[in-house]
Amino acid sequence: MKIYLDCMPCFIRQALDSAKLVTDDEMVHEQVIRYVLKLASDLDMSKTPPEIGQQIHRLIRELVCNDDPYRESKKRFNRLALDICNDLEDTIGSSEDPLETAIRLAIAGNIIDLGVKTSISESDIEKIITNCLTADFDKSAIEEFKNAVSRAERILYLTDNAGEIVFDKLLIEQLPLEKVTVAVRGKPVINDATAEDAEFAGLTELVEVIDNGSDAPGTIIDGCSKEFKRSFEQSDLIISKGQGNYETLSDKQKDIFFVLKAKCPVIARNLGCEVGEMIFKRASSTAISQKG
Amino acid sequence: MKIYLDCMPCFIRQALDSAKLVTDDEMVHEQVIRYVLKLASDLDMSKTPPEIGQQIHRLIRELVCNDDPYRESKKRFNRLALDICNDLEDTIGSSEDPLETAIRLAIAGNIIDLGVKTSISESDIEKIITNCLTADFDKSAIEEFKNAVSRAERILYLTDNAGEIVFDKLLIEQLPLEKVTVAVRGKPVINDATAEDAEFAGLTELVEVIDNGSDAPGTIIDGCSKEFKRSFEQSDLIISKGQGNYETLSDKQKDIFFVLKAKCPVIARNLGCEVGEMIFKRASSTAISQKG
Repeated sequence: MKIYLDCMPCFIRQALDSAKLVTDDEMVHEQVIRYVLKLASDLDMSKTPPEIGQQIHRLIRELVCNDDPYRESKKRFNRLALDICNDLEDTIGSSEDPLETAIRLAIAGNIIDLGVKTSISESDIEKIITNCLTADFDKSAIEEFKNAVSRAERILYLTDNAGEIVFDKLLIEQLPLEKVTVAVRGKPVINDATAEDAEFAGLTELVEVIDNGSDAPGTIIDGCSKEFKRSFEQSDLIISKGQGNYETLSDKQKDIFFVLKAKCPVIARNLGCEVGEMIFKRASSTAISQKG
Repeated sequence: MKIYLDCMPCFIRQALDSAKLVTDDEMVHEQVIRYVLKLASDLDMSKTPPEIGQQIHRLIRELVCNDDPYRESKKRFNRLALDICNDLEDTIGSSEDPLETAIRLAIAGNIIDLGVKTSISESDIEKIITNCLTADFDKSAIEEFKNAVSRAERILYLTDNAGEIVFDKLLIEQLPLEKVTVAVRGKPVINDATAEDAEFAGLTELVEVIDNGSDAPGTIIDGCSKEFKRSFEQSDLIISKGQGNYETLSDKQKDIFFVLKAKCPVIARNLGCEVGEMIFKRASSTAISQKG
């Protein structure tokens, strides 16, 4: 998904929010804003939003001399998610369709996105869980997904954020674990999940976990490690979590199921849905070719 | 009031909203956005927000080859406000304190600001009127205002937007008309009121109306006409309507009463109030010197 002009005000706001989150130094805030404004004024509009996010957050980390300014936030959200998810295993186990329930919860976890919103409270998360467990959503892809999972030889699950990754584990547990590889970001960017978070969530004990070698808040294949590229190519089913992965992979010719909450008007328009909707959707090009 | 870093995302959003409102040509939208991003990246932070707004809207008018792209919106809001205000004269006449009621209604009219919000419906305006007629607000300046009005020899009333100017007339009618001069913008900018709107509102039949010679969405004294500067200097009481006038005059050493609705978090922080609050406030420096 390419950048829309409507993304511009949001880039500026996000950059300022992030700068404020990681330092109180107003000189740094101003440097960040001026850099991002300049970057945006010359922007190649064929880029995807995470390509810009990558540049912005590299600058912020450099200016605040901290290679992981969201470390504490990530730990906090991991712990919070773990507390919440302990109870949710029972919810899944006792539900009529455990896979559907796990998908709903994985989508709920996608609220923990500090790129979109600077502050998320425990009660925000609890509200979103209740909502996601009961809200109507287009479930037509679930049967297709079950078939794709049973046919697939190798499944690659692309995670999004720390905290959220604990919710992802609930969904991963519903899959044939021997087929599954989980990928996290290669380096810290915003609150995106890295190897440390996968370990905290208990994923490393469950399945193979790799990192993608990149510090983009999405999956820019060209910038990823050889190991990741190989795994991506060799997997016949990709599960892509969150907005950043959708933005960078929506045009790829691969069998991808996108799992996310549409959190901004631009994404919602691109997906043909309302802001706040739960999305569980197969990449359209693949869906068409598989149907034919 | 100087620009805050938090104004930046809003400048970009406002510029894009305005460009979309005046043309469907996406090339123009992109040109506007790129220009505004560049302008903002080099910005002198000692400027006031309307100084930037002035530059942005000059560019938009030039790019769309239209010296008054908001003309139809302004006419529509004038007609709508006139319909609504016909009934409100009775509300004022039958109220316990007609001046206070007229101030409340003048503040309600400040919602008609297309710089802040791109679409305002009749029902938005009706809701805001009901709210402004009943909401608690700091009325401590009203007695001071009554004294200042009775002591003043020349009162200058600085209007803000078309449509809103019809509400301003309700307040102006409560003042000693022989003392009052009303000032409008010298040239069209956003939906700010010009001479045409003052005439439509019936103000020209009531009091002296001048224009300020400027196309800034505020009152940048240095950019105003000699006639306006003279009137500003010779007036011993200024009534300043709306955010743009507040942003450009808040630091002036003059006896000014600011009448507005705080519509953005930056203004609200500057005023020490909540977003959405009704503001009727004497310029603090003057208030202090008058008390002393």
